[in-house]
Order: sequence, then structure tokens, then C-alpha cells
Amino acid sequence: MRAVRVHSYGEQPTLDQVPEPEIASAMDVLVRVDAAGVCRTDLHIIEGQWAEKSGIDLPYTIGHENAGTVVATGSAVSHVAEGDKVILHPLNTCGLCRFCRDGDDVHCTNSTFPGINTDGGMADYLLTGARSVVKLDDHLQPQDVAALADAGLTAYHAVAKAQPLIYSGAHVVLIGVGGLGHIGLQCLVAMTPATITVVDPSPEALAKAKTLGADHVINATDPAQIVAQVMDLTGGQGAPVVLDFVGENGTEDWGVQITRNAGSYFVIGYGAAVHIPTIDIISREINVIGNLVGSYNNLVDLMTLAAQGKVALDTTLYSLADFDTALSHLDGGELPGGRAILVPEL
Amino acid sequence: MRAVRVHSYGEQPTLDQVPEPEIASAMDVLVRVDAAGVCRTDLHIIEGQWAEKSGIDLPYTIGHENAGTVVATGSAVSHVAEGDKVILHPLNTCGLCRFCRDGDDVHCTNSTFPGINTDGGMADYLLTGARSVVKLDDHLQPQDVAALADAGLTAYHAVAKAQPLIYSGAHVVLIGVGGLGHIGLQCLVAMTPATITVVDPSPEALAKAKTLGADHVINATDPAQIVAQVMDLTGGQGAPVVLDFVGENGTEDWGVQITRNAGSYFVIGYGAAVHIPTIDIISREINVIGNLVGSYNNLVDLMTLAAQGKVALDTTLYSLADFDTALSHLDGGELPGGRAILVPEL
Amino acid sequence: MRAVRVHSYGEQPTLDQVPEPEIASAMDVLVRVDAAGVCRTDLHIIEGQWAEKSGIDLPYTIGHENAGTVVATGSAVSHVAEGDKVILHPLNTCGLCRFCRDGDDVHCTNSTFPGINTDGGMADYLLTGARSVVKLDDHLQPQDVAALADAGLTAYHAVAKAQPLIYSGAHVVLIGVGGLGHIGLQCLVAMTPATITVVDPSPEALAKAKTLGADHVINATDPAQIVAQVMDLTGGQGAPVVLDFVGENGTEDWGVQITRNAGSYFVIGYGAAVHIPTIDIISREINVIGNLVGSYNNLVDLMTLAAQGKVALDTTLYSLADFDTALSHLDGGELPGGRAILVPEL
Amino acid sequence: MRAVRVHSYGEQPTLDQVPEPEIASAMDVLVRVDAAGVCRTDLHIIEGQWAEKSGIDLPYTIGHENAGTVVATGSAVSHVAEGDKVILHPLNTCGLCRFCRDGDDVHCTNSTFPGINTDGGMADYLLTGARSVVKLDDHLQPQDVAALADAGLTAYHAVAKAQPLIYSGAHVVLIGVGGLGHIGLQCLVAMTPATITVVDPSPEALAKAKTLGADHVINATDPAQIVAQVMDLTGGQGAPVVLDFVGENGTEDWGVQITRNAGSYFVIGYGAAVHIPTIDIISREINVIGNLVGSYNNLVDLMTLAAQGKVALDTTLYSLADFDTALSHLDGGELPGGRAILVPEL
Repeated sequence: MRAVRVHSYGEQPTLDQVPEPEIASAMDVLVRVDAAGVCRTDLHIIEGQWAEKSGIDLPYTIGHENAGTVVATGSAVSHVAEGDKVILHPLNTCGLCRFCRDGDDVHCTNSTFPGINTDGGMADYLLTGARSVVKLDDHLQPQDVAALADAGLTAYHAVAKAQPLIYSGAHVVLIGVGGLGHIGLQCLVAMTPATITVVDPSPEALAKAKTLGADHVINATDPAQIVAQVMDLTGGQGAPVVLDFVGENGTEDWGVQITRNAGSYFVIGYGAAVHIPTIDIISREINVIGNLVGSYNNLVDLMTLAAQGKVALDTTLYSLADFDTALSHLDGGELPGGRAILVPEL
Repeated sequence: MRAVRVHSYGEQPTLDQVPEPEIASAMDVLVRVDAAGVCRTDLHIIEGQWAEKSGIDLPYTIGHENAGTVVATGSAVSHVAEGDKVILHPLNTCGLCRFCRDGDDVHCTNSTFPGINTDGGMADYLLTGARSVVKLDDHLQPQDVAALADAGLTAYHAVAKAQPLIYSGAHVVLIGVGGLGHIGLQCLVAMTPATITVVDPSPEALAKAKTLGADHVINATDPAQIVAQVMDLTGGQGAPVVLDFVGENGTEDWGVQITRNAGSYFVIGYGAAVHIPTIDIISREINVIGNLVGSYNNLVDLMTLAAQGKVALDTTLYSLADFDTALSHLDGGELPGGRAILVPEL
Repeated sequence: MRAVRVHSYGEQPTLDQVPEPEIASAMDVLVRVDAAGVCRTDLHIIEGQWAEKSGIDLPYTIGHENAGTVVATGSAVSHVAEGDKVILHPLNTCGLCRFCRDGDDVHCTNSTFPGINTDGGMADYLLTGARSVVKLDDHLQPQDVAALADAGLTAYHAVAKAQPLIYSGAHVVLIGVGGLGHIGLQCLVAMTPATITVVDPSPEALAKAKTLGADHVINATDPAQIVAQVMDLTGGQGAPVVLDFVGENGTEDWGVQITRNAGSYFVIGYGAAVHIPTIDIISREINVIGNLVGSYNNLVDLMTLAAQGKVALDTTLYSLADFDTALSHLDGGELPGGRAILVPEL
Repeated sequence: MRAVRVHSYGEQPTLDQVPEPEIASAMDVLVRVDAAGVCRTDLHIIEGQWAEKSGIDLPYTIGHENAGTVVATGSAVSHVAEGDKVILHPLNTCGLCRFCRDGDDVHCTNSTFPGINTDGGMADYLLTGARSVVKLDDHLQPQDVAALADAGLTAYHAVAKAQPLIYSGAHVVLIGVGGLGHIGLQCLVAMTPATITVVDPSPEALAKAKTLGADHVINATDPAQIVAQVMDLTGGQGAPVVLDFVGENGTEDWGVQITRNAGSYFVIGYGAAVHIPTIDIISREINVIGNLVGSYNNLVDLMTLAAQGKVALDTTLYSLADFDTALSHLDGGELPGGRAILVPEL
């Protein structure tokens, strides 16, 4: 079969012919890849930023946002069968550690991450485990949801964690309404009674945010101006919930400033460092909340929202052979608002 | 009446004769002070560190850890009466803002803080409000509990917030078992099924911690050594809950390192700044939780633990006239393990 | 001023001339009544069903769903002022008991209930307390929201309690979409990502439910048929959340049957008795959750939803002098879907 | 190997020679039984009460409270190995349904229950699944903990569910301090800061309850007297948490009466039916909370408490051949306070 493989960090991957993977253990699931999302992390992998962290030997196949069709299953797999359309949770988890047994499978102490530290989904087939496959509703197509498997799931998870803090009309400030953020915004609208303020430097992104349900938008880059506008909207108190989908370029500073006393600043995007004097943390009794990708059940629930039409993505489709075009479009910022999806059957 | 008043920042307060306060509004409560705790914050006030923040005009009376006996009440006060022994919540709150109506009265948007921004309790009498007074159990004496009003309440509150995270045997690391920390330790033992590890540079403090119920103690100052020992005790994972009663001198760094993935680092002590790359916050999905003083009901509950003998303080008593001795003993570190209490009737 | 007063149980109230109430204590608020909802409970009071429970001496003024304009305030009242439009929480609470201090003011151990056990709002003026008044947004009119003060607040509160149980797409069955239920439905849509099934014997009510956002409706009265349809919709499992706005005529039986294992059956309407063998309670691990009217902050939040247009009521206006027409229309079922509101200025 | 098997309902089981079970699938675990608890449910099975519910073909092996030593594992099992001492969670769960993925594995939609609907542990060997085995601490012996696998786990689970409701000094009434109840009491003491009142007709059981940490005991059988004593202890309010380990003989009535407004009545024991007018449920806003056996992680945590010496059981050991003596002692009430354990190696 074909597979997009990295041979050397700093060089473009190539489309190789490799053996088709096969069912090897009782909990294995073999999936024909119908759609593989192309993500900024793929660019970072190719550059070598993940080399040490992943520790994987080259060459290997990238692609960690995958959806497709089951073609074979191990002997102990009963919840999916050949022909089922599925989306893949990014992690293959053990099901037996304390975290897995608590439903917090993302922190599984024995997981693998296809596309990061084992072969991923930019290929004709992907071998994964029973615990990663989520059956899709008949109305959903793999190519429409593949990009929700990782980026979308992270946004969903952050909103699900914030939900208990959001009373009717509670101010939520959403920083950065790009790839993740605009999924986060749709989740906020679908799942909570928040009053939503979106901050982004792009007027186009903000215009779209308004159509998706944002109550207020702030189109500014000067931190003092942003803080002033948020304080104005919140009666001088700041917001009880701030969702930062950027996490760099200063948002990590003013994001904390606009957090209300006893409020929570959710870190979702990353890049810079949070730096807060402990006197401010305690005198304002604020919280900094880390957010990783969501759990398996979070992905099930996100697929429910997608099937109900409450969360949708703009996508641009590419054939598998065209992977380098997709990567360079992403790298060059030529995918405004949408996501690049590789479709092997094209 | 007599009152310990600050006349000029940087100079010692003096014991002045001032008019006795009187009931002025329907919700007022006049209390004869039986015990007033002496706290490190009093030293900071005298030095002038709080001048700008409090904004109070000099001279004024300090003392923010107060207990005594009700001598008069306003017309709308029905839950306490003349002769009742009471401890005073440090804040006079409005009862009407959203925070007060949610039970989170510490974040009241209209509160005063006697001893900080209005006259406090190092005096024969203190005028306070109905919402600050907690009636004491018959078995409790004001001089035994006064120092729980602020410092103890802060420790209690942090443990109460951490409690839902503490399953049976969950590792909790408590950093710093001094004034606040040893109350926090007693609360942990009384309220949770934690496996408790205490870190402190003082062997005496750790010996006491063992008698109070600590499961493990770490007597080290080298961060690498502390981290290694915690990792050893926690199977290499770190602790799901870290309670930092220091918040400076490096605890704010290694305290975060010993926090388990998906765990929470509670900031209670303060001084330094928390500095964490956002990539670490998200990849480990950790939380930084701010902690201020507890609510009115927290103080009620802490008094229950005190009445049941589950939380106790060592104290040294001083007469009101001897306030300067108490302050200099505190400043000079001559109060190991105990708290200085001014008792006007001595 | 004019007041609708009950003189003798079993007889119609009369419109009497009575002295205007006056500010008597520091926390009092005097309100000109602009709108008073007419509720089924008023019929029950007149019949004498509440005589023993309320213990009030006749004659007295009924009316417990009130909104109006502040005309005078006691000396300690600072959060509302003359001229403010307000809606009144049904209870005057003490603010000092454990429940009030926890934000659960509905269970205040020292409250009064105007219109039930003290003079109510079917009058030109009503004397209430500072803790009951919620300032209205400029866009809201007293006559549009008065009926949300009690019935609507009860529905809101039940949904707010259920919210943490409702993951995206979680099945919620709402039984009875009449006065309370159709507010509950609007709250469910605004506040949660539930998949909503409404059960009601009225095709008209169900048609309206569809327009308000119900995903499925069940128009049946035969319990076996209802149970079968719910099981069909929920993959044979039942619903994790059942909201019963009827609580009699059998709903209290089949409502429990359609509750999923580990699910919760919320009792909101009342009349019959819940009867469940303990073996069923434990083997299915189900919960029966009682629901009373909401808290003060719940009312604030419901007013936010009303101001945002997410919750609305159909109303029919009557002059105060026409109170008996309103009562007889209600009694005779001539108010389909709407609520009767007395407007003194008409 | 030997196995205690039921051949015909209404007749005593016999000790049969049967083939030793063998590893058949990748997730299987074969355990040498070191200890098998004898439980009242075994008597009910023999009588035929479970015939229809379990649907199992006779003969089969009973025994659902099992602990032992791993002797073989399937190919996919990595968290336990030959020679490990283990206790067995009563359910073999699928790990893949929504409940399992949420950590609520007790409600697994594809589970089996060895000893109830498949062969159990009153035998030399038991074949179970990887998801049921909990590795024991070195200090724990199978015969000391086997009886915690089902009864003890149920008690633990109820206390763990109640814990978030239990503030310091909150009144908890524990009804029935027999087999389950005295485990529940030890859990309450270890895990919460409750003020505990135990109600039981046996003076001996109450004397033991006092030594285990009960604050108050009520030795009465007259409901009116019990209610009066609880009201006296709770300032007339009742208890916010009532744990009913009996669930019959009237406790299901007065247990609800002694529940405070906004409080929760936990049903753990069973037999009778809960019957409450909906008007009482809503006007007092009380909850009825069902409780089944605990989750896998609950069992892990209970074993931690056992290893720390915080939860202990009195047991009487019998050889496997002596199973009928153990059953008749249990049936005849000759096991006061303790549990009968079959030890195959005796």
C-alpha cells in the first residue's frame, strides 16, 4: 500500500510503497483510511521538533487525524465490524491503568499515538486498536469529520471541562478563533448558555464568529485595549472563564488579566510561558487549567454534535499523492478557515 | 478603650486611648475582644507594604484574627446575642452580590477587612457586622481559636477545595509545615483518606508532622533530591494534589514538577512567581489552583473540627499592653510552632 | 391602596382598600406592583388547601409571582434604588443561616413567602426585603416576566441541577409540556446539548414543543406505549435524565421505568406518590431527585436568558379589578399555553 | 479440581470434581482461589430466588467474593503475572461500552458476574478476565480481604458517593451496622469528617460501632423514638446524609423522615419499597440515591484502606470441603459480626 513517510528530519516525506499492516492481536482493528487530516503538528514533526519526544525510528508514516472503514478485526473485538465507518481517537490506550479505568484515558500510562510515535494514517490502511475506534453515524462521512479527531477533540474537551463553571449568561472570552477556536466556539454555543466574547486579530475570522453565535467580538491586538474592552463588557470584573486557543504572543499575559477573581484561565494553545506572581494567584484566587486532547467518550459526544449539524468544519480535499501540496498550502497559510484532508481514494 | 494603632509606616504602633465604637446600623455587632492573633501580615502593615493596597488613613487599629464576646447588636441581628462567644470571619461582606449569594462570600464585591482597611481587633472592643460572627461551641475559648480566623481558615479552605480530588490513598504532598501548613495537615488527616507526604527543611517540624499523621516526610532542600524522593514514593508519577504553603524560594518550581499528569498544584503561600511553559501545562494537563481565605461556612466547619479536637494550635498569650513584645517575638522567630495571641483582659 | 384579599376559605377574594405598606426596617424594599402572576396555587389557597400549612390569619393578600418598580428602600439597602424595575424572588430569606450562606437560600430556615404566609402582590404595592429583589434588564418589562418568578424559576432550577448529567446528545425525557414544562424545555435547549424527547397527551402542546426545539415527541397516554417508544429512541437503555413536570396520573410510575440504569428521575410536578421497590433502586442504581423553586442567583440567570430572548412566556393581561375573571379563566382551562397576569395600572 | 456446585434449586450444593478451567482468550486470567467469601446471596441462589434473573443452566459453581493467586494469563494481559496475589472485582466487564469508558464499569452493558451467572469461586481455580483482577499489596492476604470484594465494595461505594456532601461535622446517620454497615462505618471514619450517628437494634453491634468511631448511637426499634432522637441530635433538622444498609422493616420509611431538607437518603440494603408522596419530595427537595457495588477503582482504593489498616473484617475460616457448615452457620446466624471464608488449601 501507499504511505507518506518521513525518512529524514528537515526533508519532505515521500509517498512509499509499504506492506499492508495485518491483524496481529485480539484487540487489533485494521482500517482503510478514507480521510487523514493534515495538521500543523505534521509540519513540526517533519522539521524534527518531535524527534526526541517521540523517539521513533525513521522512516515512519505520519497522520494522526484519521477516519475510515473497518476492514478486519481481532478475535476479541465485538463493538465494530467489517464495513463500519469509524473515526479514530488519536491514542491507543491500555484500558487497564487507573486513568483508563476512571474514564480519563488520555492520561493512560501505556498508550501509543499513531502518526507521532508509531505509524499513522496518511496511507491506504492503518492498524489501530479496538479502544480507539468510534463508529460513525450514517449521516457522517469520514472526510467531513477526520480533522475533528485531534484538533476538534481538544477544543471540545476544553469546553466540556469549562461547562460546569458556565451559568446562564456567564461571560466566556474565547481567544483566537482559528482552527481549534472556531470548533471551540461552536461547542460553546451548542453546550452552554454562555455570553461569548471572541478576541482575534482577523476581521474575517470575527465576522464568521458572529455568524456562529458569538455575542461580542474584539478586533484588537493592543493588550491594554483588549483588557479595557473586556472589562467594559463584564462590568469591570473580567470573565469567569477564559479559553485561550493561542497561548503565545502575549495572550498568556492578558488572558490572565481578563480572568475574573475566582475565575479560570484555560490554556489550550501553546508556545509561550505562563508567568504569574503567586501573590496575584492567591489574592485573586484564580486558576490556570491545562487542556489536552479529549477522552474517547468526548469524541463520541463530539461526533453526536457533528451528526446533529451543531459542529461543522470547512475542509479542502487532496489526494494522498498530493500530500506535499496540502502540507505546503498549510505551511503557506493558504487554507484560511478550513482544514486540509487527504483522501486516499481520490 | 485601648487600641494598638499605627500612626506612621515604619514606626512601631502605640497603645492609644480611643472612643469605644458604638452600634450604628441594623446589622452591626459590637464585640469585646478576648483574643487577637498576631500575624506576619501585621509586620508587613507596620512596614508600609500594604499602604497603597489598603488605602486607609492613619492612625488606625490593626488586628485581623479576632475572637471575643458579643456586647451589643443592631436591630436586625437575630442569630447572635449579648454574651455569645464568637470568632470573627476576617471579612465583613454585603450578602447581596452574586458571590455572596453563591456562598463564595470571600469574593464579595463590597467587603471590608477589619485590621487591614478599617479598624481591627487589637483593642478592647471591635465593631463588626452580623455576617462576620460565628458563634463558638461551649467547649471552645476565644484565645484557643483566634489564630484560626485567618491563617487557619486559609489552610482549611485549600484542603476543602482539594478534597474532591483525593481518593483513598491518593498521594498529597504538603510543602511547608509551619503556621498554616500544620493546620492544613490536621485538616487533611481529619477530612480525607490521603496518603500524605510532608516536605520541610526543619527536622523538628517534620517530627511533629509525623505525630499529626503524615505518612511520609522529606527533609531536604535540594530540589532535585526532593523531586526524586516524591517520584520514588509515587511510582514515578508525581502527586495528583500538591499543597504549597510556601510559594517562594523555589517551591513554586519543584512543586509543579512533582505534580502528576492531570494533577493540581495549589498555591497557598506566596512570594515568588509561578513560571510554566504552556507546552508543559497542556501536555501534562496540569492545573494551578489559587487559594484565598475560606468562606463563612468554612469557618463554621473549621470551628467544628476544633471543637471535636481534630484541629489544635499551640499559642503564646500576651497582654494587650505587651503587643510590642509579641510583635518582636514574631519578627525575631522566637515563636517556633506556636502563634502569638493578645488577650486584652490579661 | 387596592388589594385582592381572601376573607374566608371557599369564598372568592375581594378587592379591598387597605393602607399602603411602609418601610419598617433597614432591609425593607417597597415595590409598586406592575404585574402579578395568577397561579394554580392561588386557586388552592382560596379553596383552603394551604390553610393549615401557611397558618396565616385571614384576611390577607394573595399573589406570589410579582414584578414591579422600587418606590422606597430601607437604610441598609444599596443594590436597588427608587425607580428600578425588579422581579421578586418568591422567598424573603435571612441571609445568615447555613443554607443562605451556601447559596442554597431556598432552604433558608427563617424565610417568609409573600402571597402564601404573608401579604402578597395582587395589590398596588408590596413590601418585601432586599434579598428578594432582582433588578431587571432595560429590555425586560415586569408584565412579561412576572410569571417566571415562581413557576418558571422552578423549571429553570431543575434544568440547572440536571445540567452536569447531560453530555452532548444525552437523552432527556421531559414529561408534560404545560406551564412549567415549556419553560423547562426552553431552558434545556438554551443551557444543554441534550437530545430532547417530550411526552404529552396534547398534540398542540407537542407541536409547540417541536418549534421550541424538542428532537422527538411522544403523543401517547398508554404507559406501555410510552415506555416502548422511549426504549426505542434510547437503544433499549432508557434516558439518563427524566424531568417529570406532572408527578401524578401515572407519570410517577412510568417515569421511573424509562430512567436508564445509573440515571436520575427528577420530580418537579406533584400530586401522586413515588413507589419503588428498594431492589430496583439498588440493582439499577437509579436516583429520585426532588426539585423546589430555584435560588436567587437562579432567578438572576433566568432573567438573563429572558433578556437574551431564549426564554419567553405567552401571557394574557387583566386589570387588578378583573382578578376574578383571571382566576375563573385559569380554573376553567381557558388559558391554553399562556399565563394570566394582573396589571394594576390597567 | 473441586467445585461447590448447585445441581437443583432448593437442595444443598455438592463438592464435585470438575475439569480445571483453561485460558481461552487473550484477556483471560486463571486464578488459584485462596479465599472465597460466603454471602447471604449464596443462600438466596440455592433457594432459587435468582433462578430467573441469572438464567444460568444447572449445575454451576457459586462464590462471588474471591481472592487468590494468578496462575496463568492470556496473551494480552500485562498488568498481572503468575504468582501475583489478587482480589477479584465481582464483574467481568467489556471495557468498551460508554459506561466502561466513563469509569462506571459496574453498569457495563456486556458484563458477566461469576458465581451468579457463570461459574464462581468456591473451587480450586477460577477463570476470570484481566479487567477484574486487582493486585494486592504485599501486606494483604487473600483470606483477609475476600469478603470485601462484593459486600465491602458496596459499602465503600456508597460512602464514596456521599463524600462530596459531607462537610466537616455534617451529620450522617448510618442505619444497620452489620456486615455491610460496619465496613461502611470504617470507610466513613477514614474518608470523611462526618459526625456519625449509628442506629441498630443490637447493643453489641453499637458497642463495636463506638470503638470504630461512631459519635452517637441510637439503640431503638420504635420509629417515632428513633426519629425523635435524630432530630434532637441534629437541631431539629435531620441529617443531610442517611445511609440505609437495611432497606426493609420500616427503615425505608423513617430513613426518609430523618433526612434533612435538601438532603439525600442512600438506599444500600434492600427488601421493602420506598414510598414517598411527590409533594414531600419536592417541598423538602430530598433525594433518594440508589447504590450498587463499586467500580474497579473503588476496589483498588478499598484495598489501599485495608493495607493501611483503616478497614478490617472479622472472619471465620472454613475448608472448601466444609462449605456446608459455613452456609449453615451463616443461615443460622452463628456468625455474629464476622464473615465466613472458604479457604481451599485448608
